[in-house]
Amino acid sequence: MELGTADPDVTKVGWIGTGVMGLSMCRHLIDAGYQMTVYSRTRERSAPLLDAGAKWGASPADVASSSDVVFSIVGYPDDVREVHLGQKGTLKTARPETILVDMTTSRPALAGEIFEAARAKNVHSVDAPVSGGDVGAKNGTLSIMIGGEKGAVSAVGPLFEKLGRTIIHQGPAGAGQHTKMANQILIATNMIGVCESLLYAWKSGLDLDTVLQSVSSGAAGSWSLSNLAPRIVRGDFAPGFFVEHFVKDMAIALEESARMGITLPGLALSHQLYSELMAQGGARQGTQALQLALARMSGMEWGQAAPG
Amino acid sequence: MELGTADPDVTKVGWIGTGVMGLSMCRHLIDAGYQMTVYSRTRERSAPLLDAGAKWGASPADVASSSDVVFSIVGYPDDVREVHLGQKGTLKTARPETILVDMTTSRPALAGEIFEAARAKNVHSVDAPVSGGDVGAKNGTLSIMIGGEKGAVSAVGPLFEKLGRTIIHQGPAGAGQHTKMANQILIATNMIGVCESLLYAWKSGLDLDTVLQSVSSGAAGSWSLSNLAPRIVRGDFAPGFFVEHFVKDMAIALEESARMGITLPGLALSHQLYSELMAQGGARQGTQALQLALARMSGMEWGQAAPG
Repeated sequence: MELGTADPDVTKVGWIGTGVMGLSMCRHLIDAGYQMTVYSRTRERSAPLLDAGAKWGASPADVASSSDVVFSIVGYPDDVREVHLGQKGTLKTARPETILVDMTTSRPALAGEIFEAARAKNVHSVDAPVSGGDVGAKNGTLSIMIGGEKGAVSAVGPLFEKLGRTIIHQGPAGAGQHTKMANQILIATNMIGVCESLLYAWKSGLDLDTVLQSVSSGAAGSWSLSNLAPRIVRGDFAPGFFVEHFVKDMAIALEESARMGITLPGLALSHQLYSELMAQGGARQGTQALQLALARMSGMEWGQAAPG
Repeated sequence: MELGTADPDVTKVGWIGTGVMGLSMCRHLIDAGYQMTVYSRTRERSAPLLDAGAKWGASPADVASSSDVVFSIVGYPDDVREVHLGQKGTLKTARPETILVDMTTSRPALAGEIFEAARAKNVHSVDAPVSGGDVGAKNGTLSIMIGGEKGAVSAVGPLFEKLGRTIIHQGPAGAGQHTKMANQILIATNMIGVCESLLYAWKSGLDLDTVLQSVSSGAAGSWSLSNLAPRIVRGDFAPGFFVEHFVKDMAIALEESARMGITLPGLALSHQLYSELMAQGGARQGTQALQLALARMSGMEWGQAAPG
C-alpha cells in the first residue's frame, strides 16, 4: 500500500471521535473523496458525517477492521488508551501495515506505549496533535505536530494536507505530543500576561481598546492578545478552547516536566490559576475566562467592573 | 506658538539623555531640521549629535532656557525627577508654554507630579514612553504611548511622527506610563512561557528550530517567540533590552498594582525570576537571558546543555 500516491477513492480511512474538532476534520476527508468509517461514543454526534456519506463503525475495533488508516481525536489520555489499547480498541483488529494516527492532545508516554503495542502487530502508529482550534479545523489550516516513523508519517502526508497548513514531522513516537506541550506552555503563561495587563489597564483608568491599539503590534504582541483580548474587553467568554481541556494539557506538561526533572514555575502558576477558574465553575468557558478568576483574586467581578 | 504648523527651522527643541534610544531618536529630529540643544550626564555620549549640528546644553535647566519643547529619555525615575524637578532641572528655567516630554519608562505618579509642577508655571508636561527597542528607535518605528493634555499632545505630534509609527494619546498625565506598564506586563509573563517552552522542548529531546516552526505561527505565537527564541536557541544573550531596565519596569508595575489593590501573580513571578537572573550577574544581558536562570533552576547550564 502506498498511501502517498494512492487514488483517494481506494483508500479506506477510519475516524474515531467527532467533537467540534473531529467533525470538521473528518468532513475535509469526506470532501476529498476518501471512504470514511466513523465511530463516536454517542452515535448522534456522528450523524452529520453519516449523512455526508460516511459509514458507521460500531466500535474502534470495528472501524479498524475495515480501514487502512485510522484517525482518532478524543478527549483525554484515558479515552485514547481505550480507543487503541482497550477491549474493543483498534489494535484488536488492525491488519499489518495499518496506520493509527492519534490527533488528541495526550501523554507523550502513552504515544510511545501505543507505538510499541502497534509495532508488535506490524501496525504503524503516529502521534499528531494539532493547534489552531475550531477555526483551524473548519478551514483546514491546523498546525499538525507529528511524531512517529518516517515511512508512516510520509504515507499519511496527503491526508494531513487536507487538514492543516503547517505539517511538521518533529521526531519519533511522542515527539508530536511533546511539541504540543511546548505549544501549550507558551499559551499558558502568555494568557496570564494578557489578563493581568487588561486588569492593570482597566484599574488604572485607561480605555482598554485604546490600550490594545498601542500594545498589540509591538514587542508585547501575540496571537492571544490580538484574538482573545478583544473578546475579554467585550465580556465574551464563550469557548474557542475549553478551560477543562487546557487544564488537562497543562497537567500533562507538568507531569512530563516532573518526570524529566525540570521546574516550570510559570506553567505551574498557570495550571493553578486555571484550576481556580474551574473550581469557580469555569470548566466549559473559553480560556480567556482566566480574566474572571484574576479579577476575583483582586475582589472584583470583571463583567460588572470593566467597561464593555 | 503653534508647533503643529510651525516651520521646523524655527522650532527649538531640547533633548536630554543620549543612551542607545535617545541617540537614535534625537538624530531623527536633527535630520528633520529642528534646532536641537542636547544634554547628557556624560558629554562624550552626546558627541555624535554635536558633530551632527546640535548645540550643547550645560544642564537640563540650560537646555530648557532655550527650547520650546524639551524631550527627556533617561534611565530611572530618580533621573527623571532630577532632570525636571531638580536644582538644575528644566522647570527652573522653562518659559510659559514650553512643553516637556518625558519618554523614559517611569512611574505614572511621577508623571502626574511633574505635570502639576509644570502647570504651576504655565508649562505643559507630557509623558510618552515608547516600545520598539533600539531597532524601533533607529528606524523611527516606535510605538509611543502618550499621557497629557490634548493641546500639548497635538502640538508635539509632528515631532512624534519623526520618531514613531504607532502614536496614540491614551489619556491624562500618567496614562502613557500606565499603558507602558500594561505593555511590560504582557512581555513579562510571555517571556517566562518562551523560556519554559524551550527548556521543555530541549529536555524532551526535540530539535528546537523544528519546534519553533510548528509553534511560532499559531495560537502560541508572539513577537518574543519570533524574535527572541531564535537568539536563545543559538545562545545569543546580547542585549536588545537590558535585564536591569526590565526589572525596574516590573518593579514600577508591581508598586502601582499594590497601590491600586490588584494582585498580579504572573508579573510577580516574572519580577522574581528576573531578579534571580540579576543576582546571577545578568543585569546587562538581554531579557532573553531569562533562559539561563530558568535552566539553572533545573540544575543545567543552557549554553552547555542545549544544542545549537
